[in-house]
Amino acid sequence: MQRIVEAVPNFSEGRDKEKIARIIKVFASHPEVKLLSYEPDADYNRTVVTLLGEPEPLEKALTDLVGVCVREIDLNHHSGQHPRMGAVDVIPFIPIEGVTMADCIGYAKSLAKIVQDQFDVPVFLYAEAATSEARILLPDIRKGEFEGMKEKIKDPLWHPDYGRPEIHPTFGVVAIGARAPLIAYNIDLASKDEKIAGNIAKAIRKSSGGFQYIQSGPAHLEKRGHVQVTMNILDYKKNPIYRIFETVRMEAKRYHVEITGAEIVGLLPRDALVKSLEYYFNVHDEASSVKDLDFETLVEKARQYLLFRDFDKFKIIESYL
Amino acid sequence: MQRIVEAVPNFSEGRDKEKIARIIKVFASHPEVKLLSYEPDADYNRTVVTLLGEPEPLEKALTDLVGVCVREIDLNHHSGQHPRMGAVDVIPFIPIEGVTMADCIGYAKSLAKIVQDQFDVPVFLYAEAATSEARILLPDIRKGEFEGMKEKIKDPLWHPDYGRPEIHPTFGVVAIGARAPLIAYNIDLASKDEKIAGNIAKAIRKSSGGFQYIQSGPAHLEKRGHVQVTMNILDYKKNPIYRIFETVRMEAKRYHVEITGAEIVGLLPRDALVKSLEYYFNVHDEASSVKDLDFETLVEKARQYLLFRDFDKFKIIESYL
Repeated sequence: MQRIVEAVPNFSEGRDKEKIARIIKVFASHPEVKLLSYEPDADYNRTVVTLLGEPEPLEKALTDLVGVCVREIDLNHHSGQHPRMGAVDVIPFIPIEGVTMADCIGYAKSLAKIVQDQFDVPVFLYAEAATSEARILLPDIRKGEFEGMKEKIKDPLWHPDYGRPEIHPTFGVVAIGARAPLIAYNIDLASKDEKIAGNIAKAIRKSSGGFQYIQSGPAHLEKRGHVQVTMNILDYKKNPIYRIFETVRMEAKRYHVEITGAEIVGLLPRDALVKSLEYYFNVHDEASSVKDLDFETLVEKARQYLLFRDFDKFKIIESYL
Repeated sequence: MQRIVEAVPNFSEGRDKEKIARIIKVFASHPEVKLLSYEPDADYNRTVVTLLGEPEPLEKALTDLVGVCVREIDLNHHSGQHPRMGAVDVIPFIPIEGVTMADCIGYAKSLAKIVQDQFDVPVFLYAEAATSEARILLPDIRKGEFEGMKEKIKDPLWHPDYGRPEIHPTFGVVAIGARAPLIAYNIDLASKDEKIAGNIAKAIRKSSGGFQYIQSGPAHLEKRGHVQVTMNILDYKKNPIYRIFETVRMEAKRYHVEITGAEIVGLLPRDALVKSLEYYFNVHDEASSVKDLDFETLVEKARQYLLFRDFDKFKIIESYL
């Protein structure tokens, strides 16, 4: 079985197109690693990169990414709307196929050691790889940002997991960790009333008592002329898409509002689709095994049962393998 | 508007019927406070009491309860299956009508001061009244029980909120706090397969990623010949009954299993019923206002929409007022 890991590093440059090109070019020397996308954001002044590959080549590519950012980015001359503490700010490893979360924690630690040894950049382990409760959430580590980290890192509570308690003078620090795949998922409602979307979002999201791995809020799509319940699913194994979809449908009933569609922003793992379609195959007594379906049939069934729009096989991570 | 508070004190005697009678007798001198029930449990060797009343007479009755238990119960000669740390182990205040959670936190603090002043019993504030994260959950405070508390209370981390860091030699310590009403709620499934009930319980409960205020597990009712999803709803405002009921129904569909009934164990606040019936009144375009229904109609509608069995108005706390 293949061992496939996703990594979604963020680096702190989203404006200088030539610099971004020079940074992204490092992946050209790692053809075994797939560069699925990179999305520079000028307001945030950072770029989010999505990589897919086997653990060993992925580690080499990420090491080179840190190396080029040590040379290219000086955070003393950086501003942007998104909080940041490092030239490469964060590197999460995400298990996709044939690897466990424990494996990904191992990859995080291995890369952390290399980054510290080769570039003298202090590393915080975060999310599933965190060494204490206070380091699980990225915003907690990042609080104070590059500027505040000079002092913060001297506090014994915030000594890095790898390296001396002193930031790299131009790079800052980096958080490396492991987490479950995050699915950005929106449900379209046949209504223009944002309050209805807001009430439904409140019913399902963790912060107001709903499902543990759901972040959610209302959105109004002016061009499309309707509202959405917009969500992040932080763990699709514990909060599968179908359960969220059906709960939203149930809540919408009290407002006599129909669900007209749904969309995945970015990518989702094949397994997330399989786990949810299995529910509908059971309910509707469909005989075939969802696990064995090809991409085309999975896409067709996702459209039928989960009302996915603008959806094709290139939304499924494994289609790139 | 009336101000009505529920209190559910537990005292550590569940076997000696004469002693229990002497303890319960204190409520006879407080006719303004309604003694809804007391349930001695011989295995647990404790008794759970449910009281309802206005805050001031309730405080007097609870003070007398602590007083009689100081005289009657010596924890040095107590054993039972349920963990305990005090002759009166815990006293939660629960807002029912015309009072807020903040009010109930106030009542908890007021009673805590009286208990400490009059009986020299150390008090821990817990749940919504807790003074630190570590003291929110009763099992965390109670860990070590009466026997271990002698040493534990000397640790500055576990100094009591009221009183010296020394247990009462025969009474021990008591936790006093405030919490939302807890609803014990079970859903009947037309199946004998406990695994199905277990899977559904897992989908909805907090501990495996479900709703924040749901504790849940499977149960097999031998005499009735079917399984149940058995639950505690810790906050019915954030996790209303209808939402749990409909989510269980949705999950059960994949097993082609029907819900045949549901039951409330103990009592529930009228507002919990109103909040859930409003969902069905909206869905089915029933014109009347649920809030204004009398007890009989509420009961009838709860049977119709929520499939409540063995349900009458005496299951509704406010019917005792």
